[in-house]
Amino acid sequence: MARGPPAAAAAAHGPRLAGVGRALLLVAATATFLPAAESSCPRDNSLVRDISRMHQSNYGREGFSHITVAGALAHGMKEVEVWLQTFGPGKRTPIHRHSCEEIFVVLKGKGTLLLGSSSLKHPGEPQEIPVFQNSTFTIPVNDPHQIWNSDEHEDLQVLVIISRPPIKIRYQQRRSKL
Amino acid sequence: MARGPPAAAAAAHGPRLAGVGRALLLVAATATFLPAAESSCPRDNSLVRDISRMHQSNYGREGFSHITVAGALAHGMKEVEVWLQTFGPGKRTPIHRHSCEEIFVVLKGKGTLLLGSSSLKHPGEPQEIPVFQNSTFTIPVNDPHQIWNSDEHEDLQVLVIISRPPIKIRYQQRRSKL
Repeated sequence: MARGPPAAAAAAHGPRLAGVGRALLLVAATATFLPAAESSCPRDNSLVRDISRMHQSNYGREGFSHITVAGALAHGMKEVEVWLQTFGPGKRTPIHRHSCEEIFVVLKGKGTLLLGSSSLKHPGEPQEIPVFQNSTFTIPVNDPHQIWNSDEHEDLQVLVIISRPPIKIRYQQRRSKL
Repeated sequence: MARGPPAAAAAAHGPRLAGVGRALLLVAATATFLPAAESSCPRDNSLVRDISRMHQSNYGREGFSHITVAGALAHGMKEVEVWLQTFGPGKRTPIHRHSCEEIFVVLKGKGTLLLGSSSLKHPGEPQEIPVFQNSTFTIPVNDPHQIWNSDEHEDLQVLVIISRPPIKIRYQQRRSKL
């Protein structure tokens, strides 16, 4: 489907979520891989939009590309927002969590979902779950997670749906050795 | 992307929205092309789901196929729901409206969006807007609309995102000659 933009980069962000379970530091930070910077984008009131011509950004991360397909700031959405994101081989999101619902649909490529749990005081080892073209998954509200293009060759392209835009993100990092 | 199910059928539902503007009858009815019947589906708690293996239904309409990719009843979504729908050539949704937000992403094929306006007492002639692969559009809350695969050969496949599931639909029909 969506002719995604040429892959750009979701910052190989240090250690995998796997190693972060027992020593987490929650960091409320500016979203650098998400549409926080979008406020400078012009409002687009067109009724039907060609996704391949829409504004895209890598938010300063090589190998990552983000398009807000329908968003709060650019399109006046109030309850739901849709993004198209492309991760180059080896690229990943930061470890993060948020209190909205989030659904992924994998349009092409394959990768790994790393998923911790907000229901445990010490989340321990997160699950590492393979994701693949034409798969879908939902991130439980507030669970720490990371999307990783664990493939060495192909781009990973996902459609991301979130509720209650604009998203407020909390990043998680290893306390040391980052 | 999504290897959609073989196209099935969105009932050629009589007159086009175009002819309905001045004589509308709002009908609150059971959703026959949407997941109202889904309550009988088992709850699916798998974390990553292969869309091509998910339950699909045509809701009694030849040439239409619906998959709830992530939904309130089957997957416990509370704020947003995602569907994959396929319309065979010439097929269309009924004319309908709803008070939630709705975003379409066209995965393949082409067709026509017929869009009335809820802001006019007599909406008059609706807009007929071409939609195409890799395009996106949003239905303004409460505006009457219809999605029509106006192509004679290809399937039209769309990803549909709605807020505040489960959806409550009102159908619009011509007062006579239906």
